[in-house]
Amino acid sequence: MTQTVAFIGLGNMGGPMALNLVKAGFRVQAFDLNQTVLQQVASEGAIAASSALDAVSGADFVVSMLPAGKHVVGLYTDVKTALKPGVLVMDCSTIDAQSARTVGALLTQSGIDFVDAPVSGGVGGAKAGTLTFIVGGSSDNFAKAQPVLSAMGKNLFHAGDVGAGQIAKICNNMLLSILMVGTSEALQLGIDNGLDPKVLSEIMLKSSGRNWTLELYNPCPDVLPNVPSSNNYQGGFMVDLMAKDLGLASDCAQQSQSSTPMGALARNLYVQHQRQGNGKLDFSSIFNFFKKK
Amino acid sequence: MTQTVAFIGLGNMGGPMALNLVKAGFRVQAFDLNQTVLQQVASEGAIAASSALDAVSGADFVVSMLPAGKHVVGLYTDVKTALKPGVLVMDCSTIDAQSARTVGALLTQSGIDFVDAPVSGGVGGAKAGTLTFIVGGSSDNFAKAQPVLSAMGKNLFHAGDVGAGQIAKICNNMLLSILMVGTSEALQLGIDNGLDPKVLSEIMLKSSGRNWTLELYNPCPDVLPNVPSSNNYQGGFMVDLMAKDLGLASDCAQQSQSSTPMGALARNLYVQHQRQGNGKLDFSSIFNFFKKK
Amino acid sequence: MTQTVAFIGLGNMGGPMALNLVKAGFRVQAFDLNQTVLQQVASEGAIAASSALDAVSGADFVVSMLPAGKHVVGLYTDVKTALKPGVLVMDCSTIDAQSARTVGALLTQSGIDFVDAPVSGGVGGAKAGTLTFIVGGSSDNFAKAQPVLSAMGKNLFHAGDVGAGQIAKICNNMLLSILMVGTSEALQLGIDNGLDPKVLSEIMLKSSGRNWTLELYNPCPDVLPNVPSSNNYQGGFMVDLMAKDLGLASDCAQQSQSSTPMGALARNLYVQHQRQGNGKLDFSSIFNFFKKK
Amino acid sequence: MTQTVAFIGLGNMGGPMALNLVKAGFRVQAFDLNQTVLQQVASEGAIAASSALDAVSGADFVVSMLPAGKHVVGLYTDVKTALKPGVLVMDCSTIDAQSARTVGALLTQSGIDFVDAPVSGGVGGAKAGTLTFIVGGSSDNFAKAQPVLSAMGKNLFHAGDVGAGQIAKICNNMLLSILMVGTSEALQLGIDNGLDPKVLSEIMLKSSGRNWTLELYNPCPDVLPNVPSSNNYQGGFMVDLMAKDLGLASDCAQQSQSSTPMGALARNLYVQHQRQGNGKLDFSSIFNFFKKK
Repeated sequence: MTQTVAFIGLGNMGGPMALNLVKAGFRVQAFDLNQTVLQQVASEGAIAASSALDAVSGADFVVSMLPAGKHVVGLYTDVKTALKPGVLVMDCSTIDAQSARTVGALLTQSGIDFVDAPVSGGVGGAKAGTLTFIVGGSSDNFAKAQPVLSAMGKNLFHAGDVGAGQIAKICNNMLLSILMVGTSEALQLGIDNGLDPKVLSEIMLKSSGRNWTLELYNPCPDVLPNVPSSNNYQGGFMVDLMAKDLGLASDCAQQSQSSTPMGALARNLYVQHQRQGNGKLDFSSIFNFFKKK
Repeated sequence: MTQTVAFIGLGNMGGPMALNLVKAGFRVQAFDLNQTVLQQVASEGAIAASSALDAVSGADFVVSMLPAGKHVVGLYTDVKTALKPGVLVMDCSTIDAQSARTVGALLTQSGIDFVDAPVSGGVGGAKAGTLTFIVGGSSDNFAKAQPVLSAMGKNLFHAGDVGAGQIAKICNNMLLSILMVGTSEALQLGIDNGLDPKVLSEIMLKSSGRNWTLELYNPCPDVLPNVPSSNNYQGGFMVDLMAKDLGLASDCAQQSQSSTPMGALARNLYVQHQRQGNGKLDFSSIFNFFKKK
Repeated sequence: MTQTVAFIGLGNMGGPMALNLVKAGFRVQAFDLNQTVLQQVASEGAIAASSALDAVSGADFVVSMLPAGKHVVGLYTDVKTALKPGVLVMDCSTIDAQSARTVGALLTQSGIDFVDAPVSGGVGGAKAGTLTFIVGGSSDNFAKAQPVLSAMGKNLFHAGDVGAGQIAKICNNMLLSILMVGTSEALQLGIDNGLDPKVLSEIMLKSSGRNWTLELYNPCPDVLPNVPSSNNYQGGFMVDLMAKDLGLASDCAQQSQSSTPMGALARNLYVQHQRQGNGKLDFSSIFNFFKKK
Repeated sequence: MTQTVAFIGLGNMGGPMALNLVKAGFRVQAFDLNQTVLQQVASEGAIAASSALDAVSGADFVVSMLPAGKHVVGLYTDVKTALKPGVLVMDCSTIDAQSARTVGALLTQSGIDFVDAPVSGGVGGAKAGTLTFIVGGSSDNFAKAQPVLSAMGKNLFHAGDVGAGQIAKICNNMLLSILMVGTSEALQLGIDNGLDPKVLSEIMLKSSGRNWTLELYNPCPDVLPNVPSSNNYQGGFMVDLMAKDLGLASDCAQQSQSSTPMGALARNLYVQHQRQGNGKLDFSSIFNFFKKK
């Protein structure tokens, strides 16, 4: 029997994710405050709901993809009583863990199952259905989420209890920002001292400096093909989004009284880069920050 | 015909490296100011020279493995005129690039070929003959160095002209320190928020936080077997040595007026860790810096 | 005619502040959830109210001194309709500017005048009536607040509109933390190189390194008498409180997308110091962070 | 009887300093490799020597004002044997403490008295004779130096033994850079949140954020008159010079294995600012680094 998924939030990520659920054979009741994007997904097979309440009506699964914690808390406060018993709610937004836990508690009180399941992989991954989901929730709910999440992505991780998905994503992205800034500094130091960045990249890639950015996302133009740095830092993961995620990491560190000096420095360098008008460039453009003008 | 290698500097690294040359069939004329280590290598097949001058006499190759730039400059200033025409000098010490270039210029003036060839891989790699050499010098000299270096290591990189070996090593090790500190911060942030460090490590290893330290050298105890963190931070690469390399990176950045804020922060965190009495621990012990006491 | 002040929040700071209002001739209707502190101020001339609502009843002025933004928002949401027309509300808590603005908007909608007026000067200043108030609000309300605030402090600054008091305090305290850490580093660098910290302090105090911490609060023991550093870092302004204020500065910078790399580094060093068990020491104890163990 | 001072190094600082000695009645034997500046001071009453050796001949005092440690070591190595018994050598250059100690040892071996006496106060202070000298050397030599130094400056500090003058100056300037960056961040954070920088400066100046830069050198344009920030960051103390001094501080910290995370961050921010083409601006221009573009 066809299962119904309510999908709330049809932005750059949410829109293609909802359509992958349609392609996988789910009945998708979609909603977004923006009528243009709503009609777009409706034209490709989703059912346009008239409100979030309308969207969740009768749904077996709910997926939300919203900008910030307050939107997610607001949504589930509003629709909580309209959810069908036995539904599984999956919030795929990247938000603070505290809000994820608040929603989890709110729904659990009403007997509703919940996982937080933030994604990585960008708009390209959303379209291709190759996203990574980092899931927080019980093992049962992780299992229950798999058929839906698998229709939108190819890697599913179970990070721990509710909220753990957000924490793991934040930790990863904070570390990613450090790798990117550190790799940029190291390459520029080499260039300033006469090294060829391709040769230096190759050496470090085979040595203890190896990391994801050197492998797949070199920030120095023309070292790797088909990466944002070789395309004027267009496409990819925007500085604005990295700055947002580093803000979440900072909040998280504050809540747990954790010391993250490198993460904090990365955040401030990214914010400075953003303030200088680079918010829409790919986050590897931090490489330019260290160049000689 | 048997070729002769003069080997100057028989410390923890130099001793086993010299012996691997013996095993490979070279005639090794060894020297060290410390008679104990000199007799040790002599007992295993090297010829104990009575001085550096004596060691280089008639040698086809010279290898040096000394603590700092001043020792290397001093050595080659002293023995320069005693070197046989056609000899290739390979300095495998980790020193500042400026000293490497000074020695290169000094020897080139006398018509002597020179490469800087700093190593990585530690005492274990020196004994096993699996070191990595990062070589600076002409392509011809890089080719000429290979038979000797291959007897002591398995990866040879050609980084560029004289001095480039030191620069590339410094860039790599600065980046490594950033990976280590960043990974430690990210893991501790996760732990402080209830995540299991094994699960978080696994997730980041398959995500964009992937880096050499997560793969092979996790700083959190009991995530990986057979790494220093799972052995009370014994063995491996000492904090004292990382602090030294970060000092070289700082000098290098100063010479080229490069901005390396993350590298500088890593240096200061390592120096602080060192001052607190941890200089002899493995450098992954910086993980302890971020823990709750 | 005697004017009535409602005073909500009778902690280490609030208690002595309320009593200074009693001494100045105000009728003080005090409230705190903690009966012990409430009875204490009642025994010295304040009137113990049975609730916050009871305290504000008939009051010409309301002063609140609470731990965090959520408490302040909660308080005024609850008592808003019970406030007498023409009352002036002064919140002296150190909270985030956003919460101050939320309360300001809430009260303004009901026609109630509001200023935020965070204090500095510590428990000693609260007892002696020598606090500094940094006030945000209209010029009229700043003028209206003066008789009450003057009874508790001796310096009143008008920083700007509602919320500006909190912003100015946060900026000042962030800068203070930077002065303290920077002065500690500079003194320790001198000591490590053989200088007498008294001599170095005196030189910098008469040079361009001069700052409030060198003048009045030297972090190195036994340079100045009667400062926390000369008394085992007891008394003064606790590390826990500085860490809290630096958290507010971080939130504030995040809201405005400001880059504050030094402030962020100071925050992380203080959090690390706090994690190592020093939260109850005076904030000048960060000096110990840089010492050789 | 007229006393003779040899003065070596007649740059922007040295030239006016030498002339103040002429005005004070000393016979000044001046030398510089640059004939233009040498003829300039000769035209105002100094005696143009034909070489450094010629300049020191018969001198009761020697003052040097050179760019870097190597120049100072070179100078005194060359002229050592030509110095008159009983002469006092005063090196006023800002150089690394190690070089100052090397020169001190070199001269002491020959029975010559030496102090290091770096200055602050800039070109304006050099012309006006209002420099500050921070002196390292014995108490006797400090006393002996006073008549000469007093003719060029108004504040003389005795920091300790030979080298201590350099250390104290470096500590002070490192702290100054931290005050400047910290004050810039705090002011910009206030501005970003709607505060008037004049009002905020005034509040912090009367609070615990007070420091030399707020008092005399506010980095925000149009808060103070007659400071570089109110004159397009022209004049004052150049970014290039601050970057140089922070390099000396970094070297010094490395020698003593001191941790100076804030000093290191300040150095990297200044180097980055310098790389972006701002080396000739006053060092308060770091304020621009934090502005929104």
